[in-house]
Amino acid sequence: MGKNKKAAEETKNTPGTAQEAIRQLVMANRILSNEGVLDAFGHVSVRNPENPKTFLQARSISPFEATEDDILEIDLEGNVLTKITTRPYGERIIHGAILNARPEMNAVFHGHPLAVIPFSVTDIPLRPIMHVGSFLYQGVPVYDDYESGYGMLIKTKEEGERIAKHLGEHRVQLLRGHGCNIVAENLPQLVVSAIYLRDNATVQWQTLLLGKEPKYIHPDVAKVTMQVVLFGPIPTARMWSYWVTRVKKNMPDMKHWK
Amino acid sequence: MGKNKKAAEETKNTPGTAQEAIRQLVMANRILSNEGVLDAFGHVSVRNPENPKTFLQARSISPFEATEDDILEIDLEGNVLTKITTRPYGERIIHGAILNARPEMNAVFHGHPLAVIPFSVTDIPLRPIMHVGSFLYQGVPVYDDYESGYGMLIKTKEEGERIAKHLGEHRVQLLRGHGCNIVAENLPQLVVSAIYLRDNATVQWQTLLLGKEPKYIHPDVAKVTMQVVLFGPIPTARMWSYWVTRVKKNMPDMKHWK
Amino acid sequence: MGKNKKAAEETKNTPGTAQEAIRQLVMANRILSNEGVLDAFGHVSVRNPENPKTFLQARSISPFEATEDDILEIDLEGNVLTKITTRPYGERIIHGAILNARPEMNAVFHGHPLAVIPFSVTDIPLRPIMHVGSFLYQGVPVYDDYESGYGMLIKTKEEGERIAKHLGEHRVQLLRGHGCNIVAENLPQLVVSAIYLRDNATVQWQTLLLGKEPKYIHPDVAKVTMQVVLFGPIPTARMWSYWVTRVKKNMPDMKHWK
Amino acid sequence: MGKNKKAAEETKNTPGTAQEAIRQLVMANRILSNEGVLDAFGHVSVRNPENPKTFLQARSISPFEATEDDILEIDLEGNVLTKITTRPYGERIIHGAILNARPEMNAVFHGHPLAVIPFSVTDIPLRPIMHVGSFLYQGVPVYDDYESGYGMLIKTKEEGERIAKHLGEHRVQLLRGHGCNIVAENLPQLVVSAIYLRDNATVQWQTLLLGKEPKYIHPDVAKVTMQVVLFGPIPTARMWSYWVTRVKKNMPDMKHWK
Repeated sequence: MGKNKKAAEETKNTPGTAQEAIRQLVMANRILSNEGVLDAFGHVSVRNPENPKTFLQARSISPFEATEDDILEIDLEGNVLTKITTRPYGERIIHGAILNARPEMNAVFHGHPLAVIPFSVTDIPLRPIMHVGSFLYQGVPVYDDYESGYGMLIKTKEEGERIAKHLGEHRVQLLRGHGCNIVAENLPQLVVSAIYLRDNATVQWQTLLLGKEPKYIHPDVAKVTMQVVLFGPIPTARMWSYWVTRVKKNMPDMKHWK
Repeated sequence: MGKNKKAAEETKNTPGTAQEAIRQLVMANRILSNEGVLDAFGHVSVRNPENPKTFLQARSISPFEATEDDILEIDLEGNVLTKITTRPYGERIIHGAILNARPEMNAVFHGHPLAVIPFSVTDIPLRPIMHVGSFLYQGVPVYDDYESGYGMLIKTKEEGERIAKHLGEHRVQLLRGHGCNIVAENLPQLVVSAIYLRDNATVQWQTLLLGKEPKYIHPDVAKVTMQVVLFGPIPTARMWSYWVTRVKKNMPDMKHWK
Repeated sequence: MGKNKKAAEETKNTPGTAQEAIRQLVMANRILSNEGVLDAFGHVSVRNPENPKTFLQARSISPFEATEDDILEIDLEGNVLTKITTRPYGERIIHGAILNARPEMNAVFHGHPLAVIPFSVTDIPLRPIMHVGSFLYQGVPVYDDYESGYGMLIKTKEEGERIAKHLGEHRVQLLRGHGCNIVAENLPQLVVSAIYLRDNATVQWQTLLLGKEPKYIHPDVAKVTMQVVLFGPIPTARMWSYWVTRVKKNMPDMKHWK
Repeated sequence: MGKNKKAAEETKNTPGTAQEAIRQLVMANRILSNEGVLDAFGHVSVRNPENPKTFLQARSISPFEATEDDILEIDLEGNVLTKITTRPYGERIIHGAILNARPEMNAVFHGHPLAVIPFSVTDIPLRPIMHVGSFLYQGVPVYDDYESGYGMLIKTKEEGERIAKHLGEHRVQLLRGHGCNIVAENLPQLVVSAIYLRDNATVQWQTLLLGKEPKYIHPDVAKVTMQVVLFGPIPTARMWSYWVTRVKKNMPDMKHWK
């Protein structure tokens, strides 16, 4: 089987089994750490292909360190189904609530890339300024309705539902002074979204500093660009393969390579 | 013992023995070097768990290179108690003076991360703009009362006391055109503070350049965020474990691993 | 044979055989990936020294991963002559169209370095601000005449010809909200151009933010600088050797080293 | 011999022999490459301790790759005394002219760190904004009197003398749209100057963007700071040791380690 086919297979939208999803999830964690989008904090989830009412996610550990043994099965209300003596992420409710509200979607990212924060604490909206940011064409709302007393963490079922409602039909929402949530059809598209959200925010910031109104990508064009350039199976497979190769180069000692 | 428990143990607030504190101190030095917060200059200290009137600190060497054999015991007036033929840091008086004035605190950082300098030479105060900067909620005063003739180094007992008085009940103070001092309950919290001070300063700078007044985190919310998100034992253990893993990955040849 | 001579030989303008050109092309891909100018996307081509009506280019794969076995022969209309079961780059038409329109040139770059995007979405022209950007002395036009329905990708023969016509006698053109195309006499000069285009854009952006009109390099001086400092055989050989050494240091496990 | 003493010895101001100077020069080249101050271009020289009328410098090669075998002896007028079949740097006249005009100095840097360019193409003077930039206290003049026809390269004896005269008693001069020259008493101080020139320029740029007049370091204070903090034998030895350790970590395969 050629490398291209193998890569396309590895990035197929719906892994057939939970075990395949777990392997892809571990790699998504490593890619996002290796590319500097996640640090000790932040988390990624994927809907369980064997049960759409549960999702898979690492236990409370930095994404950089997560292995297959660290992946838990959790229901959409945040109950951990895997028997563990360790702890789940406190904010797992974000993932359950969004997956519940968006049955067509299967993967959720929550993290704190620095580049998005300026757009979360001003009234300047993030918009697609280059083709790799095209998936932002529906707009990026900013959440600012935190439960009091939880230190800006999203922990209650009520706030999870509020988050999901605020996200609505968008793919990305910012959380004021905190970070962002991203939803996607599958893990590869989620990783693409997280990495290029950072890049689009960086370039938009750089352009705004020049004091000129940038020529943003028209939403109609951006929609096609997203479908063709970013989320088509061939470009997605190429990006995934590239990021996997970089993980393997930079983390040669990591366990659980396949 | 699971990895989580081990990490929590390694980050317990008060190491029981001087030897445990020395091991944690060497790792703190490596983490701060590896994350780019310290270069050849800057230093970290921890109160001696076996004697609250002394503290532990590397001899005059870059933090990146310090091993357990390089750690000295020093009293709060700056007298080196360890018999040495080498030299201590010239600015060790900063550490003694702050630990003397703040008996509830046990760890001190002095360094020169570039990102804080702009806030030390203008009248723009550093403020918490994202949750990881919440520990700045009490404000960040700027010291500008240098002894003349010492080239902006803090070397005299009198200036050490002036520094400690200026810091007051804050956790962070900037030194004009020079760097910053940070105080914390323990080394893991100190490392968290040093790394995220840099990140908060970076994001605040990026946001201010957009020409909009940022929505800072309210001090009351920031205080809770600091307690829950940053300085709780579980998130602190997760961050510490993450940074240790990165040290081990990037410095595989360093001696004295445990 | 001394290292200097070997490097000069390796960078000679016109490789004598297709095999030599393929080796140089693989290295150009690796250099541009290693220096951060290309990521999973972007592509490089070189005219076939054995047939000026065809060019050589990797199949659809990230430049970082391309080996000699991945190089295809393609005619100037974009027809793939190599028998393959894999896929070529969708945008190969850019390369064919430019090589057809510029018979004196032999190498083409298409990529998306973030630093150039701000100049593609505002009306601020890129200009040589430091000697390594001297090759921009003829100006850098911005293309904004995309075929509709292709998501900003350049895929049709008609758009390829429009791109080539818009490029005209220039060495670099930006594509609005997308990236840039570069043309050069040979692969080493192309690599020099791609790396220093990024650096010149970065410095020009930094300078413009200071709110002063920069003193750009006069076109007449820039032209001589390009010929003497950048594209002379000796400086080009020195840069090429330097970037190759960095590739070998950073990618010790890559296959197909010669 | 303890590590500290060894480091102090390695950084002693005047190596006793040409051989010692050559070893220090190769390391200076590697440090400046490893810290990102030099790329394929730029060069460093040191006065020959066995003959003050000649200096030592690598042949035309990237500083990153230079070994002891690549070091040439050159007189102050630029004549290469070492018998070679390879080539010297085209701009070696800069080094000879400055060493001739400044008999109290023994080491010269010429390079193109991006961070200084904005200050070379606007009328904003570089000034010491943090203690590590204190060595700029005498001001940083900008040269803009290029010989025509040489593409901004400094190649003629006349222009070398013009450069030296323009530098005068300063330590640093910028070359408009090109880079900078630095002179120092010895190689370790030269390396310190080159690295922190970049950092001071970066921080000054960051501060100016905030739109406030920065509080620069007073020249009288900066002078003392330079003498005590930067160029004293102990801090210089600590920095040198730190950068050497990083070279050894990052370039484990480089030949000619001692």
